[in-house]
Amino acid sequence: MADAPGDLARLMAARFAGAVEAPAEAGPPAAEGLVHDLLGRSSVRRFRADPVPEPLMATLFAAAFSAPSKSDLQQASVVRLADPARRRAVADLVPQSPWVAGAPELLIFLADGRRFPRVAALSGRPFANDHLDAFFNATVDAAIVMTCFLLAAESVGLGGCPVSEVRDQASALADLLDLPDRVVPLAGLALGWPAEEAERRVKARLPLSLTVHTDRYDDGGLAAALARYDAATAAADPRPAARQRAVERFGVADRYGWSEDRTRQYATPARADFGQFVRAKGFYLD
Amino acid sequence: MADAPGDLARLMAARFAGAVEAPAEAGPPAAEGLVHDLLGRSSVRRFRADPVPEPLMATLFAAAFSAPSKSDLQQASVVRLADPARRRAVADLVPQSPWVAGAPELLIFLADGRRFPRVAALSGRPFANDHLDAFFNATVDAAIVMTCFLLAAESVGLGGCPVSEVRDQASALADLLDLPDRVVPLAGLALGWPAEEAERRVKARLPLSLTVHTDRYDDGGLAAALARYDAATAAADPRPAARQRAVERFGVADRYGWSEDRTRQYATPARADFGQFVRAKGFYLD
Repeated sequence: MADAPGDLARLMAARFAGAVEAPAEAGPPAAEGLVHDLLGRSSVRRFRADPVPEPLMATLFAAAFSAPSKSDLQQASVVRLADPARRRAVADLVPQSPWVAGAPELLIFLADGRRFPRVAALSGRPFANDHLDAFFNATVDAAIVMTCFLLAAESVGLGGCPVSEVRDQASALADLLDLPDRVVPLAGLALGWPAEEAERRVKARLPLSLTVHTDRYDDGGLAAALARYDAATAAADPRPAARQRAVERFGVADRYGWSEDRTRQYATPARADFGQFVRAKGFYLD
Repeated sequence: MADAPGDLARLMAARFAGAVEAPAEAGPPAAEGLVHDLLGRSSVRRFRADPVPEPLMATLFAAAFSAPSKSDLQQASVVRLADPARRRAVADLVPQSPWVAGAPELLIFLADGRRFPRVAALSGRPFANDHLDAFFNATVDAAIVMTCFLLAAESVGLGGCPVSEVRDQASALADLLDLPDRVVPLAGLALGWPAEEAERRVKARLPLSLTVHTDRYDDGGLAAALARYDAATAAADPRPAARQRAVERFGVADRYGWSEDRTRQYATPARADFGQFVRAKGFYLD
């Protein structure tokens, strides 16, 4: 067993690009377990061909749907793509993520605002909360279940990556999966046993000084922290022009860190029709 | 070490009220670890007075913010209530959850749609995605981080319970925490070491036949599955009239299961002003 505090300190330094002061004593977390796994986790996009055994899939679904749920309404669902032709059709909807086609399992997690109003109708009761909160709660439930599924899968050695790109084609996906009103996709999850050559780079996160606030929200340190973070992320993964985004619009950057990359991506509109889709599916966002 | 498949089968039977066929062989998950913990988890609302050590809190924040994030935009934040007066003021906003005041730690997880547009502005780039997707992604990021925090905390023996009731008073909470535009509360999380007498009842979940779909969404089995689930949940926790909800409106039920309880709660409007709050905070939901 590794030296637990030392190991956690190393993981924390990598995760926060040295911007975190690892506690002198890390406390109870051991050198194994979820804390350790989270600090060292990374998404996996290359898989071995081996299938995920059925009993394991059943166990992971059971674990994931054990997740906490808003008011116990349990407003999450998932569609598992088993039919190869249908899985291929879904993969075709995410052309920017060609690796999805090579995943042994593909799941679509759903915000399910349909089930509970049906339960109310079956009980002869009004559903008196038909406003933004209904959409919000179903979305959050689905996010919690997806997170539990992913972490449970990772805890047994599987790897995966959420694919929110499926929402770029929300209507086409809804048609393909027969999604009824008030059931909308949150994200896909491609899953399998990591290929040996799969890149497992720990992605550095923003310093906790920006994300963890005490007593009141205060992001006064953003610009200074960002300069350090951008320098660290640029140094950790230097990108030649060929790996820079939208060079035709923004040119080639000497130092290509997190801000440079992320702001290039979000300078182009995406999913502008998502609200329209959600409304067309019967959710009120008032 | 317990017999792993046997133990998982027992946990799964309890979690799904006997409606799950536990796999004959459970596969890799051991008798310990996250799969096991999720199947047996329950929320905790009664705590020992002992504080959570600072190094452990720092480690848990680091683990939680290692979570996957939509497009790596990292749109989650958290406010930790350290000042007792301020923590008390937040607890006063959730009168239906009086136990919150007794938790050694109280965190408010935030959908943070402010940081990234600021990053874009600092980079001199437009933020071209100012529509429902921006609110959706920040919400999902916050839900993922909260889930990772809770599971990481539970993995070291802490207990807690998300408190979405904080959104009943979203404006007052935002004032108290100095939340700027585009930063809205997702939920609180009350945390601590479980009191010895804390009730740890495994809450039965809807059968996976309703939540896990293959190739296409199909909830045709809802009514039949619900009848069994309601019978099982009513039998597991029989509720005398004094523990039934809104008896003045709906009377006393002989058999008080999940549908009976949940539909009584949601027959009364709640948080109807949440959309207005979110819009007033500067999010576009178009």
